[in-house]
Amino acid sequence: MPGDTVLIIGGGPAGLYAARGVADLGTSALLVEKRERLGGAPLSEHYASFTPHLEDAQSAMNRMIDDVSSDPLIEVLLNTRVTASQGGPGNFQVTLTSKQGETRQQTVGSIIVATGFDHFDPGRETQMYGYYEFEDVLTLVDAEKMLKEKRFVRPSTGQPPKRVCFIQCVGSRDRRLGNEYCSKVCCGVASKEAIEIKELLPDAKVFIFYIDMRMYGFWEDQLYWKAQEEHKVNYIRGIVTEVLKRGDTLVIKGEDTTMGRPVEVPMDVVILSVGMVPSAGTIEMAKVLNLPRERHGFLETVGGPLDTVSTPVPGIFVAGAAAGPKDLEDSTAMGGAAAMKAVSAIRRAMRAATTAGGGQ
Amino acid sequence: MPGDTVLIIGGGPAGLYAARGVADLGTSALLVEKRERLGGAPLSEHYASFTPHLEDAQSAMNRMIDDVSSDPLIEVLLNTRVTASQGGPGNFQVTLTSKQGETRQQTVGSIIVATGFDHFDPGRETQMYGYYEFEDVLTLVDAEKMLKEKRFVRPSTGQPPKRVCFIQCVGSRDRRLGNEYCSKVCCGVASKEAIEIKELLPDAKVFIFYIDMRMYGFWEDQLYWKAQEEHKVNYIRGIVTEVLKRGDTLVIKGEDTTMGRPVEVPMDVVILSVGMVPSAGTIEMAKVLNLPRERHGFLETVGGPLDTVSTPVPGIFVAGAAAGPKDLEDSTAMGGAAAMKAVSAIRRAMRAATTAGGGQ
Repeated sequence: MPGDTVLIIGGGPAGLYAARGVADLGTSALLVEKRERLGGAPLSEHYASFTPHLEDAQSAMNRMIDDVSSDPLIEVLLNTRVTASQGGPGNFQVTLTSKQGETRQQTVGSIIVATGFDHFDPGRETQMYGYYEFEDVLTLVDAEKMLKEKRFVRPSTGQPPKRVCFIQCVGSRDRRLGNEYCSKVCCGVASKEAIEIKELLPDAKVFIFYIDMRMYGFWEDQLYWKAQEEHKVNYIRGIVTEVLKRGDTLVIKGEDTTMGRPVEVPMDVVILSVGMVPSAGTIEMAKVLNLPRERHGFLETVGGPLDTVSTPVPGIFVAGAAAGPKDLEDSTAMGGAAAMKAVSAIRRAMRAATTAGGGQ
Repeated sequence: MPGDTVLIIGGGPAGLYAARGVADLGTSALLVEKRERLGGAPLSEHYASFTPHLEDAQSAMNRMIDDVSSDPLIEVLLNTRVTASQGGPGNFQVTLTSKQGETRQQTVGSIIVATGFDHFDPGRETQMYGYYEFEDVLTLVDAEKMLKEKRFVRPSTGQPPKRVCFIQCVGSRDRRLGNEYCSKVCCGVASKEAIEIKELLPDAKVFIFYIDMRMYGFWEDQLYWKAQEEHKVNYIRGIVTEVLKRGDTLVIKGEDTTMGRPVEVPMDVVILSVGMVPSAGTIEMAKVLNLPRERHGFLETVGGPLDTVSTPVPGIFVAGAAAGPKDLEDSTAMGGAAAMKAVSAIRRAMRAATTAGGGQ
């Protein structure tokens, strides 16, 4: 029967979990990924490990990918985008366009959008932190890539840094830049990376400048206490307003708000804890699928806290950071809930069609 | 066929969302609740509204309950506990015992545990905040109950308070009391209640003493900024070490850590932001179902951040705060994911039985 397939857009953790879930329910899934491989941000951005348990990101994602790729109910299309869609539950007509420009028409019963987030570009709006000026100013993502190679150095010298600091909330909680929300995961990710740096370079001093340490739930003792007590990471409540260069050393200027005094200290490496913004793919899918975006630019959902995956368009669901800042736990749980909803939507559409067609 | 039903234990938001999901997938659900009605903590503890949108809690829960109660695929048993269980996926033999002591044997295919959390008892371990001594010292739950009635007063006088403060992290992030984790939702709930108090009593001064304001994601501007900018709630980074009584007024003593000075100020009402602990029902179900508990006492899960609902026991899943501090978004998303997993487990068990039985 046409329309008995769930289309899943995006092959990151949320999309992979959703595809697995749909197939586990006995329904066929079509997983479409615009990149040349599955794995989402953890693979395309070379994550070293996952927050909070420091599990190797590449092996964890490869397990999810293998699990999906080997399932006869799941078809994977790489290098492919959804470029048009019409119809409704049980009968969406979508156009899939490959990188080479080939198109394929496909009827699907329901759709899960799992197009993730992009990292905030710290040089886009402001040069306050010198990201594009100074080689030794990195983002969480740049640091992650080095940590994956188990080699953490000052890019300008290739030598291990003696002093490293993280600046939290770069592009988040900031009305001037337009991103008023908190990106939820950066406190955890910075703490995780700080631990990894200390493991590689036990003599390095590692500082985290923060406004509030948002280590909710078990992250508190699993990660935050561990970073402070076992790894001697220095958390400083304060605001860094500027990164300068003096000679070949970076200097950060700001205020230690706990001590109530100005701070001006040298650093070998500065890591900007960049937050989440709606991904290019999310914005594109909002247009193609006619999905409204909420005021921060992410996909709108309709159930408040009592339903985080239903969009205003019947038969279309969202999972993961396409709907706002989400951690991995959120992304996979939403992937599972969206799988349930998407399969249910097909079931409902089929029953309606059967009833309308007099049982045929 | 026996064993084609999903047993859901607990009728709060996570359990209701899971039951709805299971039935939407065409599978029968048996929802067991030990209390005399469905609705979980939001109804049994008289929540006024939900974080972060201040949606009326009773009507929202009633909609979920009506939705579940009217479904022919969902059987609801109130005043009932699960008192024994054996077997495995596709063939769990459970004993259900009613308040009146009647027992019923039931075969179910898989199980979702959604037994929620209990609120930390602020008088159990310490009298530091005088909860059982002073009438005007409340918990978030006591305040919620008054806010539901749209009448917020000093219990000792029945008059509206002029000065109200919240003390965050009571029973959380606290090694002495054994709860090292952060309870995740209390920053949001306190901010929500502060807004509601200011709406009822615009002239009251409302203070929130906090360590870190954990207003992750959209809570940042939806709730935290709103409380400060629109409702003039005063957030003070500081630690309250003691609540005393002088005459008929409470006095809080502590330290304003931002200003670096001791604080000793009178308050008419003090609200303790109590966190989450494993519920009695969660501890009971861990025993009955042989589910290991992780080191904080909540139910253990096996997938790290890539699977938040699978327990170490095949065919048994967890949703919501039975697995640790969760907000409503987490609870419903996990309810959806657990519904998907529980139905899939039955499907898998049936296929295995069919294969083993030569297609019979």
